[in-house]
Amino acid sequence: MKQSEPDPRAPEAKGSHEPDTSDASEKPTSDRENEQNRNESKQPPPAALPGAEADLYWREVRKGALPGERYVRIVRPQAGKLRRIERGRFQATERTLVGRSWLSRFWSRVRRILIGRPLTTADLPHERLSKTKALAVFASDALSSSAYATDEILLALLAAGTMALQWTLPVAMAIVMLVAIVVTSYRQTIRAYPHGGGSYMVTRDNLGTIPSLFAASSLLVGYVLTVAVSISSGVANFTSAVPDLFEYRVQIALAFIAVITLVNLRGVRESGTIFAAPTYVFILAVLSMLVVGGWRLMAGVPPAEDVRSPVIEGSEALSLLLLMRAFSSGCAALTGTEAVADGVPAFKPPEWKNARTTLTIMAVTLSVLFVGISFLAVGFGVVPQEDETVVSQVARASFGDSVPYYIVQSATMLILVLAANTAFADFPRLSFFLARDHFMPHQFQLRGDRLAFSTGITALAVLAGLLVLGFRADTHALIPLYAVGVFISFTFSQASMVRRWWKSREPSWRRNMLVNGIGAFTTGVVTLVVAVTKFQSGAWITLVILPTFILLLLGINRHYRRVNAALSLGPSDRLLEEPYKPHVIVPLQGLHRGTIYALNYARSISPDVVAVTVTDSAEEGEALRRDWGRIAGEVPLVILESPYRTLVGPLLAYIDAAQARHPDTPLTIVLPEFVPRHWWEFFLHNQTALRLKATLFFRPNTAVVDVPFHLPE
Amino acid sequence: MKQSEPDPRAPEAKGSHEPDTSDASEKPTSDRENEQNRNESKQPPPAALPGAEADLYWREVRKGALPGERYVRIVRPQAGKLRRIERGRFQATERTLVGRSWLSRFWSRVRRILIGRPLTTADLPHERLSKTKALAVFASDALSSSAYATDEILLALLAAGTMALQWTLPVAMAIVMLVAIVVTSYRQTIRAYPHGGGSYMVTRDNLGTIPSLFAASSLLVGYVLTVAVSISSGVANFTSAVPDLFEYRVQIALAFIAVITLVNLRGVRESGTIFAAPTYVFILAVLSMLVVGGWRLMAGVPPAEDVRSPVIEGSEALSLLLLMRAFSSGCAALTGTEAVADGVPAFKPPEWKNARTTLTIMAVTLSVLFVGISFLAVGFGVVPQEDETVVSQVARASFGDSVPYYIVQSATMLILVLAANTAFADFPRLSFFLARDHFMPHQFQLRGDRLAFSTGITALAVLAGLLVLGFRADTHALIPLYAVGVFISFTFSQASMVRRWWKSREPSWRRNMLVNGIGAFTTGVVTLVVAVTKFQSGAWITLVILPTFILLLLGINRHYRRVNAALSLGPSDRLLEEPYKPHVIVPLQGLHRGTIYALNYARSISPDVVAVTVTDSAEEGEALRRDWGRIAGEVPLVILESPYRTLVGPLLAYIDAAQARHPDTPLTIVLPEFVPRHWWEFFLHNQTALRLKATLFFRPNTAVVDVPFHLPE
Repeated sequence: MKQSEPDPRAPEAKGSHEPDTSDASEKPTSDRENEQNRNESKQPPPAALPGAEADLYWREVRKGALPGERYVRIVRPQAGKLRRIERGRFQATERTLVGRSWLSRFWSRVRRILIGRPLTTADLPHERLSKTKALAVFASDALSSSAYATDEILLALLAAGTMALQWTLPVAMAIVMLVAIVVTSYRQTIRAYPHGGGSYMVTRDNLGTIPSLFAASSLLVGYVLTVAVSISSGVANFTSAVPDLFEYRVQIALAFIAVITLVNLRGVRESGTIFAAPTYVFILAVLSMLVVGGWRLMAGVPPAEDVRSPVIEGSEALSLLLLMRAFSSGCAALTGTEAVADGVPAFKPPEWKNARTTLTIMAVTLSVLFVGISFLAVGFGVVPQEDETVVSQVARASFGDSVPYYIVQSATMLILVLAANTAFADFPRLSFFLARDHFMPHQFQLRGDRLAFSTGITALAVLAGLLVLGFRADTHALIPLYAVGVFISFTFSQASMVRRWWKSREPSWRRNMLVNGIGAFTTGVVTLVVAVTKFQSGAWITLVILPTFILLLLGINRHYRRVNAALSLGPSDRLLEEPYKPHVIVPLQGLHRGTIYALNYARSISPDVVAVTVTDSAEEGEALRRDWGRIAGEVPLVILESPYRTLVGPLLAYIDAAQARHPDTPLTIVLPEFVPRHWWEFFLHNQTALRLKATLFFRPNTAVVDVPFHLPE
Repeated sequence: MKQSEPDPRAPEAKGSHEPDTSDASEKPTSDRENEQNRNESKQPPPAALPGAEADLYWREVRKGALPGERYVRIVRPQAGKLRRIERGRFQATERTLVGRSWLSRFWSRVRRILIGRPLTTADLPHERLSKTKALAVFASDALSSSAYATDEILLALLAAGTMALQWTLPVAMAIVMLVAIVVTSYRQTIRAYPHGGGSYMVTRDNLGTIPSLFAASSLLVGYVLTVAVSISSGVANFTSAVPDLFEYRVQIALAFIAVITLVNLRGVRESGTIFAAPTYVFILAVLSMLVVGGWRLMAGVPPAEDVRSPVIEGSEALSLLLLMRAFSSGCAALTGTEAVADGVPAFKPPEWKNARTTLTIMAVTLSVLFVGISFLAVGFGVVPQEDETVVSQVARASFGDSVPYYIVQSATMLILVLAANTAFADFPRLSFFLARDHFMPHQFQLRGDRLAFSTGITALAVLAGLLVLGFRADTHALIPLYAVGVFISFTFSQASMVRRWWKSREPSWRRNMLVNGIGAFTTGVVTLVVAVTKFQSGAWITLVILPTFILLLLGINRHYRRVNAALSLGPSDRLLEEPYKPHVIVPLQGLHRGTIYALNYARSISPDVVAVTVTDSAEEGEALRRDWGRIAGEVPLVILESPYRTLVGPLLAYIDAAQARHPDTPLTIVLPEFVPRHWWEFFLHNQTALRLKATLFFRPNTAVVDVPFHLPE
């Protein structure tokens, strides 16, 4: 058949020809074919016909006249009649998404309003990010940490009184050193894993399953906390500027989470652009604040507003332990640093180079902002307040109650919300990887209507929401749970790199191993310090959750492996040559159109049919037997007297007995069911069939056939 | 075969021979046979064997050597093997009641503890009551009304101040007149309906469906209110004696309802005996109180405690309307009067005579107690208090704070609880009749484990509990809802009798019609008076509920009639001679043991099998097709590409298309299902099959086969 000649039997046939090198049904799928398939399916599907049944399109692949030429034809059936449906390939149209019951139609309407119209798999975006956009996308999490890290240091030091706050800057400098070490280490990870160097994958490749699950669990816990902490801190910065709303902070935080969840379920297509603005506004706003505030302090110009707190006597002495606690608290500044390494493939080529540069820029920016805010905080003599963040106090001291102050607060709030949004991309992606490796439920692999990983997004939203509720949206209370998980994943990631260099012995492996070794050692030590100093104030929760969670992942994996072993086919497995005949049991109560329909059906699937009736009076049974001969004499009838008036028990006993007599063939239970026209009418009928189905479902070697009889209109 | 020779194949066979005049399989069931069947099933079933499968006994009916002789043999199978199971009669043992899952085993354990071990239908008691017991059983409801009727009259009159309370006795006397009229009228109903003259049946026979539903609905509403009012008043009499518990009255009332419900679910076998004691103690206690109190008033001996209330100025003038309101309130005394007429068959023969005598004795007793209490209340100058009943005040004035006082209070509380218990017999029985006539859901016909009508009992408990909650167990607030329903059913019942005499023209029909005519007219007028005077204070609720409820009953009836019409067989309806072959569709994802099992099954029930796979990537579909040929080449494979990643929609579209191609045979969908070993493992698998089943259930002409594949141990 020539390519341009339309099929006379399918008048609306539409040909789209593409040369092809492979035979569709024989050769294994090549990369090129994949590419073509993608191109093919990227064509918008032909618009649906007005007729009622244009739900499926016939999809035909034929060889062309030239060798290797292939046509794909999408045939729209006329008036809903498909030419041949017993074999072949069809493509479903968007119409098949519309539910049939009013409830499911209503639900898809609601979903469409909330998250938008469904997208095909071919719509999956493949956006590559420039360095400018990438910095915005990947850095918001890390940069936003500077909004709360200083608070944490000050709060820890305050235990020894306001005098101890002088130690803020040294502690901040130590943390900047740590940032430098971690980032240097990660730069090597990026080089080594240009396809994405998330801690889970890197650890799995180099250290094996259990360590990788440790890394993955710490990350998952970390992502949940990223959302809870960032949103709580964002709301705190908002209520610092609008103190009247302070008492509604939990509700506001939950509302933020709900909005971010919906946005992510919609799927963020223009993510780069959306992210760019607030991130750069935040950087610029805080930098201006640092300049103005720094100028006031250096030049001795008095602050725009006096935010200096009165002298507070500490409850404990300044000690090394206290300094370590302050350091641990400040380590919250490092959260989010791993994001760039995870996302290398999203960069424009050369991916790894651009990613490395971005990471370095991010680290420098983070250090400047963090140290700057800490410097001003000490200079202005601010102390963390329950109802006002340090950034807010510093901004007030620098700008007074003016427009720039509100810009700083808005930008801070926005970047914190964006940081939470980052977790909404990371958590579902990591869940996807874990589900693909059979460590998490497979549902985490599914893409929703809008191609987002809906299950992961929903799970994250629920968990973070519970944290916010449980900790009353209090950043200080959440932070101790946070850092320990993040540092565990840092440590595993760096240690994996050390192992990798040791095995690979690539050029300059010694130097690389040293760099990652320093990283692993440092982060390991910090993990210990954080775990010990923050144990009582919350780190223990994380340290309890992690092993529990790993056991859960292992249990899930064990289940999937066992199922897989039980289901997988051997090389000689195939269908039976000669099918058996099933033994069919039809439980029924009385003879009527519904049971006649079911008996006819039962006899159509097997000659070996027995009808069983359960009755609580002998007379009823005899009355049925009298009618039976005339109407259904071909089928033997068994009467079960049930003196206790129960139906299910005696029936199961009979099925057991029948099974004992037919141990080799699957028993088949044909259930005549009556389908009323309205849902409420179900209450007027005994739901025996439903209970029977629920019980029989768990019975091995038993097939259950629902034969619903519909009330004619 | 001789009767005494045991079957050699069934070593534990046990013969029980009974002469029989009918052939079991041919002749219609005679009364005599019914009687025999009942005797038969009254034998205790043979004890269950220790073996695991002694759940069914073989039940054999054979003709004997003499004409008309018949043997029934109950054969206990050895080691659980039934000789022949494809045809015949079996009897289920108690073992079949035991659930299979731990949850249902646990639930039957709980039920057994709460309501006792299950009873067979043959255990149904047929107790006949002597007049003494019958008075106790049927009169408790009516007599207990005297415990709150006086309160209501006093409360109504109090609106015109304490001076108006003098009118209490005249109002009470008017109500006693009314009692006399109603009872005289009912005496004729008892004579005419010796098999039970409940308002519903009597009205249905004489006035037709709609009036009978009015009567039935009023009665049902009345029974619910009997429980709520009696329990509330019982608790009020209890807390009158123990004032500390006043604030817990709602909880106490609910606890009483719960206990009565459990007792009734257990089934009250010894009802007569249980009832006798408190009823007679109540009568005696109140009579003694009347004697002692009367003596104090007559002889001028001061009351044991002064309960006279201070003079209260009324808020309105004494008027005819006020007196009518007081009369309406006092009509609560008549509630429960119809019980004897409902229960005629429970009396010893001659039933109707004994019932009439009992009714008269009851009416006299009620009148004495009611007038007596009212007389003492006026004499002692008591006024109803929120936290103390009139009976309690009168008893205190008569006896002081002594043992007799507590006896009166306990007896009053007990008889009120028994009155509630009466409704727990009446409501389920009337529901049973309505369900039998297809006006209420058929579930109300079912007897529970202990032969009680569990559905009716539970429904009554829930409704009465809600009333008690809603009205805070306040008798005064509930009474206005009560009387109107009761009087509607009185009126319909008497009017039916008038119609009956008119039609029958039996001897002395004129006199009888006059008696019932006076009854109908009087109760009709009282109904109007109650409805008007109590409209605002609550009767409107009943007047709104009644028509709504009748519409509901009619809707239910319409449904059942339509179903019956749709299901009933014509004279020529029988099974198809030549069964069709169903067209079978097997939706599957991938080839594995589970799908192979399902495909084998599908091919065993029909040669016409198509496998359908839904995939969101063309490659996956092609990969499946490559393996298909080797493993399942006999079955054609259809690939549905679903660019929106949904499974159910495209599958339904395909099923629609297949249906269009095979419009005559029922489609069969074979669903391979994977059954994990633990319930929580369900969360690790997509429940597509479940969603598909739920959708297909409502699709006409479509049978769904569950083929569960169980994970091997």
